[in-house]
Amino acid sequence: MTLPPPKTSFRNDYSEGAHPRLLEALAQAGRKQNAGYGLDRHSLRAAQLIRERIRRHDADVHFLAGGTQVNLTAIAAFLRPHEAVIAARTGHVATHETGAIEATGHKVLEIDCPEGKLTPALLAPVIEQHGDEHMVRPRLVYVSNSTELGTRYGFDELKALTIFCRERGLYLYLDGARLGSALAAAGNDLGLPDIADMTDAFYIGGTKNGALLGEALVICNPALTGDFRYLIKQRGGMLAKGMVLGAQFEALFRDDLFLDLARHANVQALRLRDSITTAGFTMFSGSDTNQQFVALPDSMVAKLAERFEFETWARVDSGSTVIRLVASWATTDDAVDEFMQNFRRLADEFAQPAAALAGSRQNQEK
Amino acid sequence: MTLPPPKTSFRNDYSEGAHPRLLEALAQAGRKQNAGYGLDRHSLRAAQLIRERIRRHDADVHFLAGGTQVNLTAIAAFLRPHEAVIAARTGHVATHETGAIEATGHKVLEIDCPEGKLTPALLAPVIEQHGDEHMVRPRLVYVSNSTELGTRYGFDELKALTIFCRERGLYLYLDGARLGSALAAAGNDLGLPDIADMTDAFYIGGTKNGALLGEALVICNPALTGDFRYLIKQRGGMLAKGMVLGAQFEALFRDDLFLDLARHANVQALRLRDSITTAGFTMFSGSDTNQQFVALPDSMVAKLAERFEFETWARVDSGSTVIRLVASWATTDDAVDEFMQNFRRLADEFAQPAAALAGSRQNQEK
Amino acid sequence: MTLPPPKTSFRNDYSEGAHPRLLEALAQAGRKQNAGYGLDRHSLRAAQLIRERIRRHDADVHFLAGGTQVNLTAIAAFLRPHEAVIAARTGHVATHETGAIEATGHKVLEIDCPEGKLTPALLAPVIEQHGDEHMVRPRLVYVSNSTELGTRYGFDELKALTIFCRERGLYLYLDGARLGSALAAAGNDLGLPDIADMTDAFYIGGTKNGALLGEALVICNPALTGDFRYLIKQRGGMLAKGMVLGAQFEALFRDDLFLDLARHANVQALRLRDSITTAGFTMFSGSDTNQQFVALPDSMVAKLAERFEFETWARVDSGSTVIRLVASWATTDDAVDEFMQNFRRLADEFAQPAAALAGSRQNQEK
Amino acid sequence: MTLPPPKTSFRNDYSEGAHPRLLEALAQAGRKQNAGYGLDRHSLRAAQLIRERIRRHDADVHFLAGGTQVNLTAIAAFLRPHEAVIAARTGHVATHETGAIEATGHKVLEIDCPEGKLTPALLAPVIEQHGDEHMVRPRLVYVSNSTELGTRYGFDELKALTIFCRERGLYLYLDGARLGSALAAAGNDLGLPDIADMTDAFYIGGTKNGALLGEALVICNPALTGDFRYLIKQRGGMLAKGMVLGAQFEALFRDDLFLDLARHANVQALRLRDSITTAGFTMFSGSDTNQQFVALPDSMVAKLAERFEFETWARVDSGSTVIRLVASWATTDDAVDEFMQNFRRLADEFAQPAAALAGSRQNQEK
Repeated sequence: MTLPPPKTSFRNDYSEGAHPRLLEALAQAGRKQNAGYGLDRHSLRAAQLIRERIRRHDADVHFLAGGTQVNLTAIAAFLRPHEAVIAARTGHVATHETGAIEATGHKVLEIDCPEGKLTPALLAPVIEQHGDEHMVRPRLVYVSNSTELGTRYGFDELKALTIFCRERGLYLYLDGARLGSALAAAGNDLGLPDIADMTDAFYIGGTKNGALLGEALVICNPALTGDFRYLIKQRGGMLAKGMVLGAQFEALFRDDLFLDLARHANVQALRLRDSITTAGFTMFSGSDTNQQFVALPDSMVAKLAERFEFETWARVDSGSTVIRLVASWATTDDAVDEFMQNFRRLADEFAQPAAALAGSRQNQEK
Repeated sequence: MTLPPPKTSFRNDYSEGAHPRLLEALAQAGRKQNAGYGLDRHSLRAAQLIRERIRRHDADVHFLAGGTQVNLTAIAAFLRPHEAVIAARTGHVATHETGAIEATGHKVLEIDCPEGKLTPALLAPVIEQHGDEHMVRPRLVYVSNSTELGTRYGFDELKALTIFCRERGLYLYLDGARLGSALAAAGNDLGLPDIADMTDAFYIGGTKNGALLGEALVICNPALTGDFRYLIKQRGGMLAKGMVLGAQFEALFRDDLFLDLARHANVQALRLRDSITTAGFTMFSGSDTNQQFVALPDSMVAKLAERFEFETWARVDSGSTVIRLVASWATTDDAVDEFMQNFRRLADEFAQPAAALAGSRQNQEK
Repeated sequence: MTLPPPKTSFRNDYSEGAHPRLLEALAQAGRKQNAGYGLDRHSLRAAQLIRERIRRHDADVHFLAGGTQVNLTAIAAFLRPHEAVIAARTGHVATHETGAIEATGHKVLEIDCPEGKLTPALLAPVIEQHGDEHMVRPRLVYVSNSTELGTRYGFDELKALTIFCRERGLYLYLDGARLGSALAAAGNDLGLPDIADMTDAFYIGGTKNGALLGEALVICNPALTGDFRYLIKQRGGMLAKGMVLGAQFEALFRDDLFLDLARHANVQALRLRDSITTAGFTMFSGSDTNQQFVALPDSMVAKLAERFEFETWARVDSGSTVIRLVASWATTDDAVDEFMQNFRRLADEFAQPAAALAGSRQNQEK
Repeated sequence: MTLPPPKTSFRNDYSEGAHPRLLEALAQAGRKQNAGYGLDRHSLRAAQLIRERIRRHDADVHFLAGGTQVNLTAIAAFLRPHEAVIAARTGHVATHETGAIEATGHKVLEIDCPEGKLTPALLAPVIEQHGDEHMVRPRLVYVSNSTELGTRYGFDELKALTIFCRERGLYLYLDGARLGSALAAAGNDLGLPDIADMTDAFYIGGTKNGALLGEALVICNPALTGDFRYLIKQRGGMLAKGMVLGAQFEALFRDDLFLDLARHANVQALRLRDSITTAGFTMFSGSDTNQQFVALPDSMVAKLAERFEFETWARVDSGSTVIRLVASWATTDDAVDEFMQNFRRLADEFAQPAAALAGSRQNQEK
């Protein structure tokens, strides 16, 4: 089987392998015998490092292989059968996990929301409409940070959700597949300890921030920690060689590597963004993290795709398409430079359609 | 947190990390960008290598992170809601996966069987008893090779199961978490192509044979391949960086590394066995693979545990306990030598209880 | 416990018991011994009567206790784990069954649709958006007839759905909790044989059309009939005294009782509707069946509620509420007369808000 | 379709319809309008009558259509995903509900037990073996009374289970499909208030004791009552015309009808038993309730089957079969007389095989 010569890819943040320091940690860890199933010294230390970083010595920390696995395991553990999840329609559990949550028996109530972010005002009517036993009971609010559109929650925004949820007996769960990129964003005012205080559980993504694989689930609400390892095992998420996850997270949190890697990705993504806005295009979402979205004319998308790999995100009516560009810990200056040069040239070729596309964002979000 | 100085461990075959050639393959693969979700070049090549090895170019090959994940994903994909699995009571899906199969909605019918192995004679009455819609419909026969007791299926034994299953419309599924050790056993007469011919699906274990993690599921029955990737995603088993699995299996199957590693484990295990039988003990199961079981007096077990790590498997009535000793691809001659010397010395200390323990195996199996 | 004196109720079509002929049939049937679990002579005969009525001698007919039970049992039987249902957002399975479908593991994709009715144009984009294994696979289209808004599908409308579904490998499933009222409507051009031809499965509602309880599921697609009784038993829907359902359906279908009862309900509902439109109000949905919806000023709703029972359906922004009035096989002329007189008087009291409410229907449907 | 002339049936206790007083109650109740979904006056009163009878004014009482429905709804409501049920291998949830419990995600651990009854001694080793997160966590002990073999728990036996369960944090759940026959047995020393005190939940069977359908679930442990109606709805068990169940239970518990009907069934069953033991046969189980089991030579079974309907229960090795004879509230003296005469005659015909069958009970129970 012959494969075509590779293009430079901005397709996602999981195209490359692990950061060399994580690979080295893995190799080191494997030279000794380790306890199995996540009870090894590396997993224990990594959990301890995370507890220190979030300043919550009572928090329960578990390492799992991937994001869908974390989401389905945690939600199945936290909810009773008739309880439901509320998520943005763009939320990962709502649309991009092949019904993983429903497969554990729970409905996901989806809310249309601008910029992929939930607010108390958006949640309130859903809670109100679900008043009796003929409908599911909304119980867990799912947010992602950064979101699937690259946007972020600020301190006040998350706080407002926390207050709303606590008043109504709802759990607040934060999917941090790209938490690094949110925390490393220039304008971010939300610390890991804040997130630990404000949510009932959240996870810190490793796969999309320099690890081979691995996510760290943090359960902050003591009422939700019971028997959690049973659930991990039952759902297939307990790796025999748990040190594979522990050693990588140990390397990420021993110093500032976790944030450094995310910061690098953000910087490269903002350089991509600048080249686009400089050319007169308006970004599709207000992202300052490692995912950037923009609507471009279809013909321009086609040209760009000859040199670069990226995802097409959504169709816009007027012959245009929203594309997604993602930078990672491994994105090189050269790759971004190549994009900038090409994009500038292409933008000149094509009549600038910024005005024509003005309404596109609203359309897609509806 | 201070940890005690490590003992030599025969606890399992997943205490060590990956074989150096697999780590090198991982590092290499990660230096280039790869497609996500198992569609990368390494996973494609590894699947192709396996298809060649089993001589079935139509087989569907998927890589998943762990054994429980493979079992639950495959069984949930293959069965309708009222269909059940039949397994040995000692089978991994029956007792050691925290109800993972039941959590997908399916009953596991358990059969007491000597040496952990199913036979047509053991299956027939279970099929017969399940005759109408008030009971589940048995549909999938689960075997493991090597079994949880270290025993193996020979060509004729597996063939008999295949014939039985095909006559009755049952699927035959083989859990190969330790398939390497079965195939590498001296007396083995079963090849990978035989297994592919005789089963509807099976998996080749990587985690317990030199990989960091990873199992290769092979679906041989074309009627069972449909939409399988949906199921992997839904159950949380699809790694974003699928090349992590692909690159390791590529390294295992590019040459004979897979069998070489298993053979090493078997050789070390048989040395352990020899030291035990030489001391006058009878093994608890007829294993010639990398797991060895023996019943010892409790006081002897306690002494042994001061120097070595191992699992206690089952209580035997008369003050004795069955222990399990496992060797892996990484078990050193030194470790085994250390065990041999210590065991000989301990056996001399204790009155030899071989006779007293004669009935123990039957008791436990019941 | 003292209960207040009963008001006349238009709350639903299940307030009253069974029609006397059904009660008599039940009493008769119980005087002899019957086979259990739906294999009794009454169930067999009722199934045969239905097969004759739909002119499909190959159809599979099963009797279950209630609508949610039928829906969840059938959908769990028909779909593989990753396959999803598409329904109108107002569809019963979407909102009023406490996540019963999700509890069997399947996602329900909800579509906003005017008048509670699906069309190919509404379905097409949902099918298109679900293109790979990261999303569920839409597989079954759920419609109800009459719908939750009292509207109906005409022959051409259902035919268009059938063609759309067959071209795309989708099952078409029709929830007939109120099928009688749809078929008995004056303008209906859809016969039971048409429905059997056009759907893969549907059910004929008894509970809301004169029975104590009971729905008749008809599986028209032979590919979906396999082992269905296992599913009924597994989901708890198999009554030991299945003749309770069979005897009632036998009575409903031995002659035209089923349609006669539905026609009576429709006639009474249309009289309620006439009294409302005559008073200058516009109905909220285009229903000509036994459920009628209208938006009224809140103060008028409060007054009406002093004499009558009914459901409030949805809030309308401008101080108004949509109420639902339902007539049944047992609704008397007196009850309707009482409503007509009271409504006329109340309408005179209140300033007629018809104009102000013009936009309400669109608002709610969104 | 021609059906053969009916034989006298001792097949089960659900061959006949409802007792006339229940039918009359149903007809009466249906003449007025009732609130839906189990909130009608009849259901409320019946629940109140049961609370008085069990002397627990805080108990939660719910009416559901059938036993499997009750079992699966209650167990799904009470357990977290990794928690398992323990039951006798003969227990209804273990073998005769088509994996209904597993379909809600929970494993059923089966114990071989003499006479179909669990004891602390039988439970203890199962609890002990389940010690970590690689196995399910046993959480609910399921017993049936009377059992599937017609045997009963005495006060001391149930008390011992209660103590055992409470010490270990296990729920004790009692399936009372045939609770009437247990309570009405001559030697019974267990009252309804005792059962309410000793169990966390239990149900009182109506279907097998004179009702058309219906079981009354009583939740005694306040920690288990939360949101239970959501679960009933979600699992399809909430009847729109809930008064169908309420009115019948009101009739059963307004006076002593419930026990009177059960007593009648027991009396007739004991007459059947006497005719068998008088003829020199030993009963298969120590039942003094409405189900009687006996092993007979196959040829005698065949002869008996020419005149009577009954279930064959299990094969006994030596050409014999265990049959089950069941009496109900409606079993007539004539039917029993007919059996007695025929059985005596047949017993004379056949060489009495009582001795040869002596070991059969032990064999089957294993």
